[in-house]
Amino acid sequence: MNYFDHAATTAIYPEVLDLLNRSFREDFANPNSQYMLGKDLLSKIDESRVFFLKVLNAKKDDSFIFTASATESNNTVIKGIEFNAGDVVLYSKADHPSLVEPIEKMTAEKKLILKNIPADIEAFKELITPDVKLVALTHVNNQSGVICDIEKLSQLVKEKSSAHVHVDAAQSFAKININVEKFIDSMSITSHKIGGPKGVAGLYLKKGHKVKPLLLGGSQESGFRASTQVYPLIAAFTLASKISLAKKNESFQTLKKIRKDLEDSLKKILPKVQFPFPYENTSPYILTFILPGISSDIFLRHLETRNFYLSSTSACSSKIKGFNPTFAALDIAENYHKNVIRLSFGMDTNSESVNELSDAITSVWSDLKYLVK
Amino acid sequence: MNYFDHAATTAIYPEVLDLLNRSFREDFANPNSQYMLGKDLLSKIDESRVFFLKVLNAKKDDSFIFTASATESNNTVIKGIEFNAGDVVLYSKADHPSLVEPIEKMTAEKKLILKNIPADIEAFKELITPDVKLVALTHVNNQSGVICDIEKLSQLVKEKSSAHVHVDAAQSFAKININVEKFIDSMSITSHKIGGPKGVAGLYLKKGHKVKPLLLGGSQESGFRASTQVYPLIAAFTLASKISLAKKNESFQTLKKIRKDLEDSLKKILPKVQFPFPYENTSPYILTFILPGISSDIFLRHLETRNFYLSSTSACSSKIKGFNPTFAALDIAENYHKNVIRLSFGMDTNSESVNELSDAITSVWSDLKYLVK
Repeated sequence: MNYFDHAATTAIYPEVLDLLNRSFREDFANPNSQYMLGKDLLSKIDESRVFFLKVLNAKKDDSFIFTASATESNNTVIKGIEFNAGDVVLYSKADHPSLVEPIEKMTAEKKLILKNIPADIEAFKELITPDVKLVALTHVNNQSGVICDIEKLSQLVKEKSSAHVHVDAAQSFAKININVEKFIDSMSITSHKIGGPKGVAGLYLKKGHKVKPLLLGGSQESGFRASTQVYPLIAAFTLASKISLAKKNESFQTLKKIRKDLEDSLKKILPKVQFPFPYENTSPYILTFILPGISSDIFLRHLETRNFYLSSTSACSSKIKGFNPTFAALDIAENYHKNVIRLSFGMDTNSESVNELSDAITSVWSDLKYLVK
Repeated sequence: MNYFDHAATTAIYPEVLDLLNRSFREDFANPNSQYMLGKDLLSKIDESRVFFLKVLNAKKDDSFIFTASATESNNTVIKGIEFNAGDVVLYSKADHPSLVEPIEKMTAEKKLILKNIPADIEAFKELITPDVKLVALTHVNNQSGVICDIEKLSQLVKEKSSAHVHVDAAQSFAKININVEKFIDSMSITSHKIGGPKGVAGLYLKKGHKVKPLLLGGSQESGFRASTQVYPLIAAFTLASKISLAKKNESFQTLKKIRKDLEDSLKKILPKVQFPFPYENTSPYILTFILPGISSDIFLRHLETRNFYLSSTSACSSKIKGFNPTFAALDIAENYHKNVIRLSFGMDTNSESVNELSDAITSVWSDLKYLVK
């Protein structure tokens, strides 16, 4: 199988799978039980918490909460801030739906003022006023791969307001350097994009944050997130993070080269291909291109018959025929919305697998090029 | 290990563990992907959904949503109903905290009127007025084991109001017969109490319900619950349910006898033991008793050193020293709050294991009886 949709989800590392299996068998106690069987698991969960705070460059007395998904982490922050009518929220329609949808719903309900974050830094600065209550940033956009300078933007926010700065780092954690130390108030990260299991994610919260819990009904996670903790998933997420973090720098450099080579090779194979996002400013884990004149659905289906798995957009995106709001927010002209293809790589993607992909694309192109007028 | 805390959580069935392990390895695709690798998983998830609707005696066009915990299911309903100031909510303080806490918070925020559900059916009838917007019922109370006649109570509600009737069935699903067909609007069930993994649960919603989604940001679960579905957990929950449902009636009868025998034997061993909840009206899976004069903490610790694991109350309960609001709501006198012990059984608990427990209790009692004045 030739899988190039790692931004949607990744396979579990074999050693993480082993741990998960062993832990689901052995560590079945409720971590909130009064006996040691449970208490031991709770103290291991706390060790994982300390690990995540450390790798995010957070302080020891900040919080790290285990949730079931990055979607839950994002929703918790957005729904947990106490807004008043007239508060300003800055976000981008190009963000993942788990940021965009709750923000837009909250805006309607609480009569907030919603503003789009511009690409230009000076224009961004002008939006920062004391009325701003929440700034939602995405570290690496799941469609474009564009990297946001979260440290710089969060600093600009804090210079002129006391707004809460939230960062969705689902596509960057353990792939790009992250430092929440100074100005970031909360951050979502997730397990299943980095070789860990689905069903577990994290939410970093800086000490003194004003976010209220979303799930009530128990003293778990310091009273912040009720539900029996799923120790096996937390342990597996922790191990997957350790493995990925150890490979992070090397993978980054390798993929940078692989992606450049692939871009060059796609330019040769596909005469009209367009790369809408600048190479320099994007994560090497994602490569989005436009194939004018060919429906991405058809192109992807032809690749699938050859056992190559790619996508056009986020698996979570809304599926409004013909028009894609994320593409529009990323300045992709509407007449190209049906022609977008997203390639996304894993830590173990290598030149060989990418060369096979090039061959498959060459073959599909020779089948389909008659469609292009 | 001698485990008698099955109401807190249960070990995974070996065949469920095998499935879980295989599925976490093989079924890693995102069920919302455009290729068959994902679509196949989505159609299997839909098959599981149909299975759960069927076993709950629901209709085909009702909804069944996969969530991460019964706590999330309960919170989703309570936070998802649109309340107006003055609406009446009926609940019981003896319910699980994941019902009590969000209801009490919602009541404060939205200025609702909160009324306690009385044990007496005539008194309950009198509380039903057209102002009642939500009635929260617990099928089997996790502390007392008391079975609520949810079919009868929900019928009474619907005769005099259009209130939403929600049932927490975390302790009854696949143990006691459930029929949501007529008057129940929503129901929470969970996997980890019946031999399935933690991290997955369900929410039944009758067609035409007025509950709004809690987690926004994707079209998963018919747009009702954003987050990448965790197919391996859903498959494991489904298999665990099938196994438990097949054993349901036999286990019920067996445990009824085992619990009666244990009750008789405890009366012999522990001269002052009290059983606060009537045998006839409680689930055979739970047996709570009071040991006047002996701290349950000490008693449980002595049992733990002999490898017997029991608890005093729900692992999710608030831990306010000396006073337990759940016990108070269950009419346990405050001077006994420190003397409560909860035994809870699994589907495979047998006479032999319960006899060993009796022996262990005999031994602990002979060590500790000097404490009782």
